[in-house]
Amino acid sequence: MSAETVEEFDADYDGRHFVSVEDMSNDDVMRIIDRGRQFKDGATARVEPGHVAINMFFENSTRTMTSFQMAEHRLGMKILDFDPGHSSVTKGESLYDSVRTVDAIGAEVAVIRHSTNHYYDYLLSTGMLGLSVVNGGDGSGQHPSQCMLDLMTIAEEFGHVDGLTVAISGDIAHSRVARSDAQILARLGANVVFTGPREWMDHEVTRLGSMATLDEVIADVDVAMMLRVQHERFDAGPDFSSTDYLQAFGLTDERANRMKPHAIIMHPAPVNRGCEISGHLVESPASRIFEQMRNGVMVRMAILEQVLQSREAK
Amino acid sequence: MSAETVEEFDADYDGRHFVSVEDMSNDDVMRIIDRGRQFKDGATARVEPGHVAINMFFENSTRTMTSFQMAEHRLGMKILDFDPGHSSVTKGESLYDSVRTVDAIGAEVAVIRHSTNHYYDYLLSTGMLGLSVVNGGDGSGQHPSQCMLDLMTIAEEFGHVDGLTVAISGDIAHSRVARSDAQILARLGANVVFTGPREWMDHEVTRLGSMATLDEVIADVDVAMMLRVQHERFDAGPDFSSTDYLQAFGLTDERANRMKPHAIIMHPAPVNRGCEISGHLVESPASRIFEQMRNGVMVRMAILEQVLQSREAK
Amino acid sequence: MSAETVEEFDADYDGRHFVSVEDMSNDDVMRIIDRGRQFKDGATARVEPGHVAINMFFENSTRTMTSFQMAEHRLGMKILDFDPGHSSVTKGESLYDSVRTVDAIGAEVAVIRHSTNHYYDYLLSTGMLGLSVVNGGDGSGQHPSQCMLDLMTIAEEFGHVDGLTVAISGDIAHSRVARSDAQILARLGANVVFTGPREWMDHEVTRLGSMATLDEVIADVDVAMMLRVQHERFDAGPDFSSTDYLQAFGLTDERANRMKPHAIIMHPAPVNRGCEISGHLVESPASRIFEQMRNGVMVRMAILEQVLQSREAK
Repeated sequence: MSAETVEEFDADYDGRHFVSVEDMSNDDVMRIIDRGRQFKDGATARVEPGHVAINMFFENSTRTMTSFQMAEHRLGMKILDFDPGHSSVTKGESLYDSVRTVDAIGAEVAVIRHSTNHYYDYLLSTGMLGLSVVNGGDGSGQHPSQCMLDLMTIAEEFGHVDGLTVAISGDIAHSRVARSDAQILARLGANVVFTGPREWMDHEVTRLGSMATLDEVIADVDVAMMLRVQHERFDAGPDFSSTDYLQAFGLTDERANRMKPHAIIMHPAPVNRGCEISGHLVESPASRIFEQMRNGVMVRMAILEQVLQSREAK
Repeated sequence: MSAETVEEFDADYDGRHFVSVEDMSNDDVMRIIDRGRQFKDGATARVEPGHVAINMFFENSTRTMTSFQMAEHRLGMKILDFDPGHSSVTKGESLYDSVRTVDAIGAEVAVIRHSTNHYYDYLLSTGMLGLSVVNGGDGSGQHPSQCMLDLMTIAEEFGHVDGLTVAISGDIAHSRVARSDAQILARLGANVVFTGPREWMDHEVTRLGSMATLDEVIADVDVAMMLRVQHERFDAGPDFSSTDYLQAFGLTDERANRMKPHAIIMHPAPVNRGCEISGHLVESPASRIFEQMRNGVMVRMAILEQVLQSREAK
Repeated sequence: MSAETVEEFDADYDGRHFVSVEDMSNDDVMRIIDRGRQFKDGATARVEPGHVAINMFFENSTRTMTSFQMAEHRLGMKILDFDPGHSSVTKGESLYDSVRTVDAIGAEVAVIRHSTNHYYDYLLSTGMLGLSVVNGGDGSGQHPSQCMLDLMTIAEEFGHVDGLTVAISGDIAHSRVARSDAQILARLGANVVFTGPREWMDHEVTRLGSMATLDEVIADVDVAMMLRVQHERFDAGPDFSSTDYLQAFGLTDERANRMKPHAIIMHPAPVNRGCEISGHLVESPASRIFEQMRNGVMVRMAILEQVLQSREAK
């Protein structure tokens, strides 16, 4: 763990909101992971059914939103629908007024995805919200529940994080997954190596590890974490055809063959098959991509349970 | 209560549908308000769980739709999704055929918002519907559940409505809130004063009270009910910048300072902060704006409970 | 039953998926119909509550989607939301990856409507899916749950299918209802007659019966099944005004008057009133159009119950 990362750690995490991994201690992180694994083994929730959630996704999502819904159902929560395209947001209402509204209506937990980095800072600073905020992803900032599921997948596989070599490969600068994961992995003692186009590196993130090409590190990694090439953001960076990208930076069959026998492949999905990863590797024996999705429900149950328990304790 | 308003009263309200305040006697209104207050105090519902609702909102809404959903959840109802943008309405199906369809499928209560004034008249006139219609707002006509929550908020504050002075301020002509509220407030003995641009007055509504400027009445009001400036309707009326509107017709800090100590501020929301009302007054001590949203769930529970009970009684 | 239809019958239906009537034996069909009628008489489901469904409708629908939702609610299932317009499909994700995702997240049954004919062939061929697929309509291919509800409506009315004369009238070539229904009706011994514009006939379907004009057969039919004129598909065929179509090919009052006293009118809806059928015939005594919708919930309960039971048995 480097001195730089320690400075960032902020002990004010009390479990009532879940917005950024920066607030969480290593113990906080491991508590979520362990509880996620218990849920996977069939543990029952420690909260009463009937709590009320609302999922406010201002950016498109299948898996994160559906995964949170599944977790909410498993905890017996009631779910209020929210469609930004049919909401008062189209009449110019601010995020704050929208959240205050669903708070007054009775939502206890709002899972929010929004394009503004750190959108939650203002929400929480007002001190006016009775509900708890769970961050489903903010701009190019954090994606803390994804981070928890990635950590759970790694911990489940190797039994530890300390000492593992993890390559994070792709558009580091615009990836909230890279940002969240790198922070926690570095803090927990993993050796993080960033690979991908130079234009997509960002010192804010890469300072948490080292940089290399995928060819240089592929034989040494325990985890190859491939990021989605976000074609919709290509105007902000270099343009590649999918096959060019795969050859230059992606996980080809040839590179996958050089991985250690126990090494695993991860990806936050949705996958561009044939771009950042050779299509059939997605469901190869080394792939944990769908296991990540399975684990996502488990850590989100753990997150929501903890939020609800923290509220009761107050 | 003026003779004019009495003529409008129509005793055919039997609780099976809830479409317009014009059908309701004062007792009918007070029964909803009182039951809403009981729910706020923790009363449990008198209906079995498992009844089926569908919320058919053909116009955008956050708070009304979410509020009805919350009320339905609290009554243990099952909710069928309905998205007009993905429905057969896009294939040219009429409102009647859509409602008949969800009726045949098993919905017992349809909460409907539609842009056509009095859309419910035709639906109910056919005698073909087994389900109950609850009006979530029709064109520039009625918004009866909003009216109930406004009344509940006032009754909760003052213990009575009779003799209160209520200013309704803004676009009277196009506001279903103004229309519904003014009718009931006048009938219950309140002194209603309409303020706002001349072009936005409508004799059909203003005949229920008097007209003045906000400056003339602000020191005398018990309730300042500010209406949303509907920028999307500005092509049908005068155009103002937000700051011009605030100075000329809105609730400025200066005007708010002249209000009586016990007087309250209301607004149906969504609020244009800095247009019809100074931004920080929204969460000032005199504001009941978020309390209105809280009460909205309570009166909607009362409305739905009554509808379900009326169905059972038949 | 003609030799031609027998060839198509494929005995590999095991109840775990429900994708095409071509896989079902006559006994399989009758089992669904009979169970649907039991549900209509108030039978309770033989599956535990809490199973998880997701309705993935990539084409617009009111009645099929709402009907499946209702059936899922009645079986006590949890429902995950899915909106293709806000999903990762907009980021280019394939149907397979989307379905694999919701499978990993925990959906047990996915009800899918998709514009691709036989979309389910590839999904099921991979052997990778844990969830069960229920076909809510594929392109111009199959609409097997609609077929079951049509059969249930006919069986309920006449007590048998064998020997009945059924006219299917309209755009045979593009109708998955025509395709599914004709196969099963022919197999169960009905005399199927296709009517409508020549340009809309398709030998693949019409070889299951005979062709005629509606005028020629209307006095002999037991069932007049009118198909929706899909105006949105008119660019692919002849163009008619609604009144021209009604006179030439539709069920006019005059034609309806020539029907046998016990004969019934069916339509999969949404109806174009005044186009394929005279408007007020929709709710005439001979019409079973809304009864079809009622029965739709019943057969979908039967389908889902069978899918869930088949899963348990494995």
